[in-house]
Amino acid sequence: MSEAWGELKARLEEIRDLGSAQKLFEWDQAVLLPEKGGRARAKAGATLEGVAHARLTDPEVGVLLGELEGDDSLPDDQKANVRITRREYDRATKVPPALVKEMAELQGISYQTWTKAKPKNDFKMMQPYLERLVELKKQEADAIGWEGERYDALIDVFEPDMTTAEVEKMFAELVDGLTPLAQSILNAAGEKPEFLTAPYEEDKQMAFSHWLCEQIGFDTKGGRLDQSPHPFTIQIGPGDVRQTTRTEPNTVLDSIFATLHETGHALYEQGLPEELEGLPAGTVSSLGLHESQSRMWENQVGRSRPFTEFMLPHLKDKFPKNLGSVSFEEFHRGANYPARTLIRVHADEVTYNLHVALRFELELAMFRGDLAVADLPGAWNDQMESFLGIRPETDSDGVLQDMHWSIGALGYFPTYTLGTLYSAAFFDKAEAELGSLDDDLKKGNGSRLLGWLHENVFRHAYLRAPKEIAEDIIGGPITAGPFLEYLRTKYSEIYDTEF
Amino acid sequence: MSEAWGELKARLEEIRDLGSAQKLFEWDQAVLLPEKGGRARAKAGATLEGVAHARLTDPEVGVLLGELEGDDSLPDDQKANVRITRREYDRATKVPPALVKEMAELQGISYQTWTKAKPKNDFKMMQPYLERLVELKKQEADAIGWEGERYDALIDVFEPDMTTAEVEKMFAELVDGLTPLAQSILNAAGEKPEFLTAPYEEDKQMAFSHWLCEQIGFDTKGGRLDQSPHPFTIQIGPGDVRQTTRTEPNTVLDSIFATLHETGHALYEQGLPEELEGLPAGTVSSLGLHESQSRMWENQVGRSRPFTEFMLPHLKDKFPKNLGSVSFEEFHRGANYPARTLIRVHADEVTYNLHVALRFELELAMFRGDLAVADLPGAWNDQMESFLGIRPETDSDGVLQDMHWSIGALGYFPTYTLGTLYSAAFFDKAEAELGSLDDDLKKGNGSRLLGWLHENVFRHAYLRAPKEIAEDIIGGPITAGPFLEYLRTKYSEIYDTEF
Repeated sequence: MSEAWGELKARLEEIRDLGSAQKLFEWDQAVLLPEKGGRARAKAGATLEGVAHARLTDPEVGVLLGELEGDDSLPDDQKANVRITRREYDRATKVPPALVKEMAELQGISYQTWTKAKPKNDFKMMQPYLERLVELKKQEADAIGWEGERYDALIDVFEPDMTTAEVEKMFAELVDGLTPLAQSILNAAGEKPEFLTAPYEEDKQMAFSHWLCEQIGFDTKGGRLDQSPHPFTIQIGPGDVRQTTRTEPNTVLDSIFATLHETGHALYEQGLPEELEGLPAGTVSSLGLHESQSRMWENQVGRSRPFTEFMLPHLKDKFPKNLGSVSFEEFHRGANYPARTLIRVHADEVTYNLHVALRFELELAMFRGDLAVADLPGAWNDQMESFLGIRPETDSDGVLQDMHWSIGALGYFPTYTLGTLYSAAFFDKAEAELGSLDDDLKKGNGSRLLGWLHENVFRHAYLRAPKEIAEDIIGGPITAGPFLEYLRTKYSEIYDTEF
Repeated sequence: MSEAWGELKARLEEIRDLGSAQKLFEWDQAVLLPEKGGRARAKAGATLEGVAHARLTDPEVGVLLGELEGDDSLPDDQKANVRITRREYDRATKVPPALVKEMAELQGISYQTWTKAKPKNDFKMMQPYLERLVELKKQEADAIGWEGERYDALIDVFEPDMTTAEVEKMFAELVDGLTPLAQSILNAAGEKPEFLTAPYEEDKQMAFSHWLCEQIGFDTKGGRLDQSPHPFTIQIGPGDVRQTTRTEPNTVLDSIFATLHETGHALYEQGLPEELEGLPAGTVSSLGLHESQSRMWENQVGRSRPFTEFMLPHLKDKFPKNLGSVSFEEFHRGANYPARTLIRVHADEVTYNLHVALRFELELAMFRGDLAVADLPGAWNDQMESFLGIRPETDSDGVLQDMHWSIGALGYFPTYTLGTLYSAAFFDKAEAELGSLDDDLKKGNGSRLLGWLHENVFRHAYLRAPKEIAEDIIGGPITAGPFLEYLRTKYSEIYDTEF
């Protein structure tokens, strides 16, 4: 081991461990933190953030990187760690501290304002903050640097090496195929099955979720499942992957599919190579790849005929009153029931990505200066009408519904759709290589699929560029084709209609 | 505000915030951490420990302390912060960083090993860790320095200014009075009431504990009650005080009294002056004082006639099958039922401090080099037989039962007994000043007692030396007298016999 690498590794381990504390703070705040502890916790979180930032931006890190970048003899994993650390070091040191500070303060105030503006249906409250956030994001992008266009620098945070041009092309193709397809499927859907909105005991929902995530491979000796209003998954540290799910008193499928979704994220985190010790090369770099896993277990697996067939008897056991007389066909239709909704987080598999496309188009136009922040609400409503044929009556149900923009998270939304398209393409490839997975899924057995994901996705961690990992599986750049084909096939069968 | 104080305060706040992360790690490890997360967590904990240690031992802190120690114009709370920081700075700068790091890592692994060794009844698994921990503790004591004997340096961590000589004298006096008294009471005890070992639903036990701790003043908006095998209380940060209790399927009183005990600790933490902002002067310095609170709410309050009378109807509501036909006299006797047990945490009020005396004697002998770690199990069993007339058949029920030594917490046990003796003396003084509390406790109302504790204990936090706080209440050094008298009076009444 070279001396410089030993020194950098020790520093990376320290940053990782400080990050572990920050992540436990974050998890705890979402799941357990008592109300009165909020103020001190925010301060303590900022302190940890500051300590970790100072560690990363220590000029000595730059010196070590310079030395190691010239060393061709390093093993591949060390090279990857050096490459990723360079990327993070540059991002952290190129943005002027004054901008970092103003951004952090603005995000805090803007988020607080959003929590008030949404219930009040008052977009005007948010407008000045959004305007300033867009301005600061431009400055940040320019400080970091970009090649094609400025928005590239925003995408790159969440999806390394992905460009605006590629993402625009992906959405154009998707919207083109999905808008008419979604209309046809929605028109065929009929009445909402009653069992979807009956009362379900929440403790039994949690018990089912615990059973289900273990069933498909979540290792509870190396992780936990808890409850929080907004489900999420976080790796606190090696051997400690935590997912949360939510329950609602009047529906059961929400919690089941939230659990399958988060289990997808969690299986990925649990499958990362131990020997990389949680250093940068041993993490997941791409939100798109991450979302490919959650979407796959939620949809390609969870909403498939064989898997709904597997789940139903177990659900009947838990909820005999609600589901005792529900047939498999009814249940499978219910698990795949599509509907026009104004709210992204309530959207089904068919319409979800139109919600995302809408956000991407608007944030890109806003960032490019083609759309004034003041004109966002109207543009939102027009686009919603054009995609789904429904129009929000309030901005609370429209442009104010998501928190993302309030904290300046521009460039984030596209990764949801990238993940969806990956999930369909990856699942196709898995079945092409393994043969049909139907018999496995009928037994609730995900182990062959999981093994394939280990081999093709997990073990690469961030040793390779995420786009490269994906394109190696797909055999080329991602397209909307496999996802559209997947929807067509599934719904043609469900509604016995050729879509 | 002087510039030097402003600078020191900012540093103390950073150390407090890092401490908050360390404490959340600790709480999480005991309550939630998945098994496979243990190793990485131990490492991350050691890293945080190292970062906080580096902050505390920054030579600039020494410079600031030197400057502030010469400033007579500082307000009292700032003076106290300076005084305590000096104490901690000196302790920290005297112990070499390599020793601090090895100790932290060893504690983590040793604790994990203990969790496996205990169920396996395998002392040999623990022996090398204990040997190394004792060795490191000696190095630590020598680095810090001591006057009377080396063990003083260990006690001083948990009980500032207390010496081995004082503690030995206290135990000698206690053991001398308690061994025969305990024998007499145990011999009078008769058959164990059946309701003590009936099956009690654990979820209802937890529900009762949640209700009970709120009833006597625990603020759930500023804290939590959870479950862990070994109950404890910890303040993660201002507004976030967490206690745990345990349940067993075949008894209910264990969980009740564990909850009352931990609530005593938690009320103290929640009662610390907010305006001291969680800085050193606003914390509890003495485990003995801390234990005085837990023991008082567990025993002087919880096991008193008026409070058991208050609890019984509520318990009958929850557990009608087990307690419906139990009379108040039976219940009160049961709540105070003394028995020879091998397990400290199952021990009653009469025998508990003999368990502690045993540990104190053994750890002192081990630390002095008069007892080899390999000989601990035998020495433990012999001493148990001499104090209580019973002998463990397994080390799981003997030397492996407590986690304390597994994390190197030597010098800790004596504070349990110090707390017991304080609790009896303090409660006497409270009733001397407030009049009898019987009518309050019959209603489950602890507010007058809590008010007295705020005035006499809580508000002093660490603004004054703990021994001074205690001696001001008692009117002199602590003795075993009030505690022995309290037991004599209570049991003479219960068994209608003059002990």
